[in-house]
Amino acid sequence: MILKENEILDLERIKRLNLINSITGIKPANLIGTISSAGMSNLAIFGSTLHIGSNPPLLGILVRPVEEIRRDTYRNIMANACFTINHVPVGRVQHAHNTSAKFEQWESEFIECGFTEEFIGDFPAPFVGESRIKAGLSLQEELEIRSNGTVLLIGRIIMLSLPDDFISEEGYVDLELAGSAGLSGLNTYYSLTKLDTFPYVNREDVKEQT
Amino acid sequence: MILKENEILDLERIKRLNLINSITGIKPANLIGTISSAGMSNLAIFGSTLHIGSNPPLLGILVRPVEEIRRDTYRNIMANACFTINHVPVGRVQHAHNTSAKFEQWESEFIECGFTEEFIGDFPAPFVGESRIKAGLSLQEELEIRSNGTVLLIGRIIMLSLPDDFISEEGYVDLELAGSAGLSGLNTYYSLTKLDTFPYVNREDVKEQT
Repeated sequence: MILKENEILDLERIKRLNLINSITGIKPANLIGTISSAGMSNLAIFGSTLHIGSNPPLLGILVRPVEEIRRDTYRNIMANACFTINHVPVGRVQHAHNTSAKFEQWESEFIECGFTEEFIGDFPAPFVGESRIKAGLSLQEELEIRSNGTVLLIGRIIMLSLPDDFISEEGYVDLELAGSAGLSGLNTYYSLTKLDTFPYVNREDVKEQT
Repeated sequence: MILKENEILDLERIKRLNLINSITGIKPANLIGTISSAGMSNLAIFGSTLHIGSNPPLLGILVRPVEEIRRDTYRNIMANACFTINHVPVGRVQHAHNTSAKFEQWESEFIECGFTEEFIGDFPAPFVGESRIKAGLSLQEELEIRSNGTVLLIGRIIMLSLPDDFISEEGYVDLELAGSAGLSGLNTYYSLTKLDTFPYVNREDVKEQT
């Protein structure tokens, strides 16, 4: 089917929300770990992690700060300028999804949802013990998206933790071997099967293939 | 292994590029279709599509405009403020990857890489005939990321095309059924297998599970 703008806007609200949330394709399933000024840890499932650049190493997460409800992740990052991203393992997708429930401020999703807090060196925010691939970030930039009031928080990667055998000689990370999950929309999780790795491609190579 | 900031920066350039490009997890493999003022079509593989919001329906793509080499996608979007995103089917990942080669300005990636230009209604930019899920967007906002000079282009979805049977009653899109591919780093493609869909979760539901 083909939907035009007015037909998209006329969809029932939940259907539109789910459809539009799925339309970009697969998203990375990540748990964002933060800590409050009072030392209370927080963990939240995010599908909006975006690679921004590799030198300096930067990534972004999209947050929605201006709502009636409490936004612990945003508030904690604003308070101490650091956060962790942790890949969700395929065997833990339900636990990860549970972090989207609204817990009380004195409850940590680590405990409530069955994840282990892991502190590495003197990095202030908690990592997820069950995640195989994780990064610690320092807040670098905050960009407001005027069109809808969301905010892209950009962090500089200052620490990485992952098993050596997931990384090839060239630096490729094997997401199938790592068991990292993908997310579609707000609540559907996928496993990943590696199809192929292609070399850097030149115009002449393409011409020869055809 | 654990890498600290200085160790990340000390990695060999290509290895750092590949590692940091993989660290966010799986990315959606999308082909971005544009057209120049002179009517020349362009098609380019992107892994940086980001869901921004569903009301209004917005998504973003990250582009790197300020480089020595030609950036047709950015230039075309600046020229006529529209673009398409098209899911890469798992059977076409090599063709899609080939669009990353630097073709001459008078060559269209549609022809060179074996994709069919599809025009829907009076939408000016070309869609990909081989893609099952696609959206047409109108440029809404341009956000410069000061930390590295990249630009987040935000488009409003004004047209959607996808088969009815990929969409559930609730609006969930089945990416496995659609055969949409994921991308890791710059050049590794993945297929997707649906694991589970979870309902909206309440704090009390989580308490009961544990």
